[in-house]
Amino acid sequence: METLNGFSSQRNILCLFDVDGTLTPPREKIDPKLDEFFQSLRRKVKIGIVGGSDYPKIAEQLGEGDDVIHKFDYVFAENGTVQYKDGKLLSKHAIQNHLGEELLQDLINFCLRYMGLIKLPKKRGTFIEFRNGMINISPIGRSCTLEERIEFSEIDKREKIREKFVAALKKEFAGKGLRFTKGGLISFDVFPEGWDKRLCLDLLENEGLDAIYFFGNETSEGGNDYEIFNDPRTIGFTVYSPENTVRLCRELFFDSSPRLIAIPSAKTPPELDSSRNIECRLLMNC
Amino acid sequence: METLNGFSSQRNILCLFDVDGTLTPPREKIDPKLDEFFQSLRRKVKIGIVGGSDYPKIAEQLGEGDDVIHKFDYVFAENGTVQYKDGKLLSKHAIQNHLGEELLQDLINFCLRYMGLIKLPKKRGTFIEFRNGMINISPIGRSCTLEERIEFSEIDKREKIREKFVAALKKEFAGKGLRFTKGGLISFDVFPEGWDKRLCLDLLENEGLDAIYFFGNETSEGGNDYEIFNDPRTIGFTVYSPENTVRLCRELFFDSSPRLIAIPSAKTPPELDSSRNIECRLLMNC
Repeated sequence: METLNGFSSQRNILCLFDVDGTLTPPREKIDPKLDEFFQSLRRKVKIGIVGGSDYPKIAEQLGEGDDVIHKFDYVFAENGTVQYKDGKLLSKHAIQNHLGEELLQDLINFCLRYMGLIKLPKKRGTFIEFRNGMINISPIGRSCTLEERIEFSEIDKREKIREKFVAALKKEFAGKGLRFTKGGLISFDVFPEGWDKRLCLDLLENEGLDAIYFFGNETSEGGNDYEIFNDPRTIGFTVYSPENTVRLCRELFFDSSPRLIAIPSAKTPPELDSSRNIECRLLMNC
Repeated sequence: METLNGFSSQRNILCLFDVDGTLTPPREKIDPKLDEFFQSLRRKVKIGIVGGSDYPKIAEQLGEGDDVIHKFDYVFAENGTVQYKDGKLLSKHAIQNHLGEELLQDLINFCLRYMGLIKLPKKRGTFIEFRNGMINISPIGRSCTLEERIEFSEIDKREKIREKFVAALKKEFAGKGLRFTKGGLISFDVFPEGWDKRLCLDLLENEGLDAIYFFGNETSEGGNDYEIFNDPRTIGFTVYSPENTVRLCRELFFDSSPRLIAIPSAKTPPELDSSRNIECRLLMNC
């Protein structure tokens, strides 16, 4: 196999990874050993990431400064609405252009008024955060402390504050092309229909790749990896931890003999049998 | 005069500076030549800053990383609610402890509902920002672009959106010990009565200083330097630009002969007579 700068010239497979829970512990930095592994994987296949966070957060988790866009062939932030390839920003989708200012403002004003009627033990600031491809809504306010975050989360479990809020939004904005997903402990996201992680596939399908392997930990219904995992354009894998992702990639790309990956009949907890923690929609020869 | 580490051992005078418009252009970095001047001034007197912005913003404007707390004897951020001395954080005041969660939440909820009824050409995110010593309220949302900021500002001039909002708050929360000041183009601040820049004087009056000279550019009524400028514990100077601040300090502390500073009968624009752009409440011998 020819090589260029240490990379295989036949890197026609892309391994596309979710970030939180797949490459790193949620909201934390990548383990340096795992980081090293993915750079060695890059010599064999192209590697990319598609995360729900914004670019500065992803960059902080996966390197120093702008390392991340030089360490991965593709970087998709905010569910693929912010797109980097080969170290360069290609494009940004803007939610206001897609929804229009009128609908966007109706949505924002509805949320402001709704939150103005919610009473909690504590309220802080940044109740509505505006991102490129989504609006993030938090009834307590994103600038709360960890302690306040946990307190809210406990109340939310009992009183279903976010669930009721989303139900009210779904009723008010039915048929307007909006989607809602809970994220973390204190907020939920609102974004245009179709603006989930599949958004990056529109770009990738013109890149002349033989296959796109997607690895994510939230692949069941309601999780933010669900749609891309189930898209016919990807070969999807469910992972249970960053270490599990590495083990799986090692089996796929570093074991010398072709392997057949078993499909477990049902999900098994990782502590029981790590070699079976693979949910794959294709029987593959690698 | 004895010296210690190049500093005069008799540094019993403190020169306390506002930041935006006094040491730097608004929201920008300090000019390196001016920075050098203030470090040379520090050999003669103690120097400190008291800014309205939060600490990360002030640190970015006046150095790299945490330089600022090592370059100034005192650093007071957020109007003095966040206090550093000799490179160490001394204390932070928290608005929630002072107002109580009940009043704070009534205030936040009133603002959320009020903003939920305001219709603008564009709305973005971060309508309420929670800081240590104040709440910042922005009807368009702080995450707007520069273009959107200017557009809002023009509408605000015509329609007095912030003015009406503050009037409604003053009526609703009369007698509750709240103060309001407009900041920049898109927002206003809400803070407890007395939590203006004078807050840092409570700490400074126990520091054994002979005098505190305060330099600020917003010293007229309604400006956020007004209270500290007029406080009997300071000797106040109005400045018109960072260069003007340097010129004034040079005259005060580097000219060899004692000087008498004239009080102009009225403010004169800086282009007419820069040596007269000093508004001083004391005739001084330096």
